Amino acid sequence: MSGGLDIVRSVAELRARVKYWRDQGLTIALVPTMGALHQGHLSLVAKALEHADRVVASVFVNPTQFGPNEDFARYPRQEEQDAALLDQAGCHLLFAPTVAEMYPDGFATTVSVSGVSEGLCGAVRPGHFAGVATVVTKLLLQALPDVAVFGEKDYQQLAVIRRFARDLDIPAAIIGAPTLREADGLAMSSRNAYLTAEERAVAPWLLKGLTGVADGLMAGAKASDMCPMAVSGLLKAGFSSVDYVEVRDAASLAPVEVMAAPVRILAAARLGKTRLIDNIEAIPVS
Amino acid sequence: MSGGLDIVRSVAELRARVKYWRDQGLTIALVPTMGALHQGHLSLVAKALEHADRVVASVFVNPTQFGPNEDFARYPRQEEQDAALLDQAGCHLLFAPTVAEMYPDGFATTVSVSGVSEGLCGAVRPGHFAGVATVVTKLLLQALPDVAVFGEKDYQQLAVIRRFARDLDIPAAIIGAPTLREADGLAMSSRNAYLTAEERAVAPWLLKGLTGVADGLMAGAKASDMCPMAVSGLLKAGFSSVDYVEVRDAASLAPVEVMAAPVRILAAARLGKTRLIDNIEAIPVS
Repeated sequence: MSGGLDIVRSVAELRARVKYWRDQGLTIALVPTMGALHQGHLSLVAKALEHADRVVASVFVNPTQFGPNEDFARYPRQEEQDAALLDQAGCHLLFAPTVAEMYPDGFATTVSVSGVSEGLCGAVRPGHFAGVATVVTKLLLQALPDVAVFGEKDYQQLAVIRRFARDLDIPAAIIGAPTLREADGLAMSSRNAYLTAEERAVAPWLLKGLTGVADGLMAGAKASDMCPMAVSGLLKAGFSSVDYVEVRDAASLAPVEVMAAPVRILAAARLGKTRLIDNIEAIPVS
Repeated sequence: MSGGLDIVRSVAELRARVKYWRDQGLTIALVPTMGALHQGHLSLVAKALEHADRVVASVFVNPTQFGPNEDFARYPRQEEQDAALLDQAGCHLLFAPTVAEMYPDGFATTVSVSGVSEGLCGAVRPGHFAGVATVVTKLLLQALPDVAVFGEKDYQQLAVIRRFARDLDIPAAIIGAPTLREADGLAMSSRNAYLTAEERAVAPWLLKGLTGVADGLMAGAKASDMCPMAVSGLLKAGFSSVDYVEVRDAASLAPVEVMAAPVRILAAARLGKTRLIDNIEAIPVS
């Protein structure tokens, strides 16, 4: 079980460790996270262990992907608990750099992606996906893993990462892993910890809104009819506001009106100060 | 001399060749070029051979670093001659991808650099350095060399490349190599081929303008006095227009008024349709 998970904080130490494994002919997987780990993250580690001999998880709350009015300062940080969970999950190394290690003085570079990063969360969180793309590029080039695993919970983020990893010829395979849910259907998220008991009782309606749209699409309804109904339903259920409920092509994220190929239905809504996102797949009945 | 230089056109072939060398414990250098090779490029290959066991040169006229009214279409292309020159220079492999290989359908990613890419050529060629940063990131991640060699002739480009390579943790050392000049002082450039005999006779005045500024600075004059004099001199000598003559800190490229540390003096000027750039170092008398 636990040999005591090693923690490294510098890129040099990370690279030395990865090189040591490479010299033994071992393959490497990377699981980038912002910490505050839950079972969803640990399922990414399990997926990584299916694909590689050694798994590195990173914990870094990346300031550049938070907007000025977002929750960077209060985002949960609990490294000891994260390290214990990673250890139990069979992870081999935790990379937990400081902000200064990731963004030294004079840092001036941005990786940005057009297309898939526009609309949805990209419309509500300007600069967010450029922040994600830049930090994930760095993590991938720091560790140079064979594979990197990301959750489908952040589906647009996964599409953005697949896009720039291919476009920039980053030599790592990008693997998506399915969303884990609580018993009542709420997608696991570090931000669920923000919810009051009352908000927590409302939160599962986000998934119900998505499945309602999926049912309608499978019965032949149009996205432009179903999505506004879902928004109304979420507001009635108790959400403070709804950023979007949309139907997109599962691969290209292009908007879809009538389902003819697999789609992804995506939503973001707010409960008080907490913003929740979720998404599900829907497939045409053949 | 020539065993017949091998040419590969796909990233997969390039990577297979590099892996073959890596498996033998050999080190790799990359020399990215846009072809139309001259002695300046070959000096980069020579520098690369000092640093690595195997040298890969790339020839790719990158469309994304040319503006809509620039010389992409007429930029000289002469692959057979380039391959022969590289072979004689001791280069081991030529990577000459197509535009479709570098930018497949759906390509959507940009690497951009603030600070060093602003002003100078960045002011006159919007998008140019983002095009350079994106394609050089790709080439570096395709080949994953130990070192990559770039000419000081494109001094601002070299500063941009150093910046994003460090910022994105690209695992290759960036090496600059000094500008080669014709007997009359004109910096070697593929674009010199555009010049008429009359323009070619005027061109060496670009270096004379730079050395005039350097002499002034070393005598204690201000950049804001010397640079306008140099601009006037270039126009009098026969240049059609002058994009800039500027004095910058050699490392940060921050503007400099009175020389207190090593500076770089940079200029861009036009002869008819041809745009020439050059730069020199000046060091305070101790």
